[in-house]
Amino acid sequence: MPFVNIQITREGNVTPEQKAELIKGATELLQRVLNKNPQTTFVIIDEVDTDNWGVGGEPVTLIRQRAKTAK
Amino acid sequence: MPFVNIQITREGNVTPEQKAELIKGATELLQRVLNKNPQTTFVIIDEVDTDNWGVGGEPVTLIRQRAKTAK
Amino acid sequence: MPFVNIQITREGNVTPEQKAELIKGATELLQRVLNKNPQTTFVIIDEVDTDNWGVGGEPVTLIRQRAKTAK
Amino acid sequence: MPFVNIQITREGNVTPEQKAELIKGATELLQRVLNKNPQTTFVIIDEVDTDNWGVGGEPVTLIRQRAKTAK
Amino acid sequence: MPFVNIQITREGNVTPEQKAELIKGATELLQRVLNKNPQTTFVIIDEVDTDNWGVGGEPVTLIRQRAKTAK
Amino acid sequence: MPFVNIQITREGNVTPEQKAELIKGATELLQRVLNKNPQTTFVIIDEVDTDNWGVGGEPVTLIRQRAKTAK
Repeated sequence: MPFVNIQITREGNVTPEQKAELIKGATELLQRVLNKNPQTTFVIIDEVDTDNWGVGGEPVTLIRQRAKTAK
Repeated sequence: MPFVNIQITREGNVTPEQKAELIKGATELLQRVLNKNPQTTFVIIDEVDTDNWGVGGEPVTLIRQRAKTAK
Repeated sequence: MPFVNIQITREGNVTPEQKAELIKGATELLQRVLNKNPQTTFVIIDEVDTDNWGVGGEPVTLIRQRAKTAK
Repeated sequence: MPFVNIQITREGNVTPEQKAELIKGATELLQRVLNKNPQTTFVIIDEVDTDNWGVGGEPVTLIRQRAKTAK
Repeated sequence: MPFVNIQITREGNVTPEQKAELIKGATELLQRVLNKNPQTTFVIIDEVDTDNWGVGGEPVTLIRQRAKTAK
Repeated sequence: MPFVNIQITREGNVTPEQKAELIKGATELLQRVLNKNPQTTFVIIDEVDTDNWGVGGEPVTLIRQRAKTAK
């Protein structure tokens, strides 16, 4: 009965189909590697605003802006 | 000083009164079983879109649709 | 299909019976308030060392020591 | 490669600049105390509705209303 | 820069090789579905004692004992 | 009443003093930036085995071994 939490930035329009693929893939992974029952595997996807996610000491919002400007 | 996190699907209109009941109930549970001080018990409720919650390898959105169709 | 995470400090010898009561109580709470199915309710209890839990800017270890000394 | 999750109530208008300060501060803290590499330090800020956050057995929404009335 | 947290019960001797497979699989899943960079994908596996994990209102410890007795 | 969770790899002998510094620093950060009350700020530190933490699709255990060999 595994529980999987996937946190990603909310950007680039993640579709319901892509979320369904993440759920299916994570569930199959647990079944393949540890023989866990898919019926009792939970997957929760959290989408986080780029203002609220930091890496390297900076919000992702700033990192994305700099990447755009640099093009 | 316990910390309780309750994650539920966002569906069926959970009211502020129901959330207050969950908070009260979880706090009392910790007090009753472990004698924890309610004043330092935190409860956080997360509501998760049905597209973002999977069980059995599928999003809850699909599971709910199938249940409706089957009626 | 709720997911409940209870975090408590690891101290005072929490027994398997008390953990079972927390699991039962949290599951019943979700059933009573939101009519959630117990069969798909997960409860996970995390016990955290008092060195690793802080409140008021201090580890709980120090707070407990001071409380003892003050007696 | 630390991971820091900061959960706060959604109230009082937290600005992107304040979030950037939290991200910067948490990242520097891990670098200063444990010599962790900022480039692989993640910080995620979650803002939680006051209806969904409880302390002392009550939603923060009620606590804030009582504080206002008491003024 | 996704963050994946996999929670499983601590039982049946999960090997370092199996953990490495979970990490590899989850990272590839995020790359395949959302084109996320593996270099900034974190995976954290938590193993939880069966006394501390409940489903159906009962600790997994009890569920496993009953399953054994029923054989 | 913020809640801060710091997850780090369990390696290199993190002392109780360093944990106390992390707790103090995170609590002060929330007070400085958002004027949060230290008395209701929780900090929880989780130490994760290097077998259980992955980045770039690999367990940290392997990454550390390779770094040693490369010296």
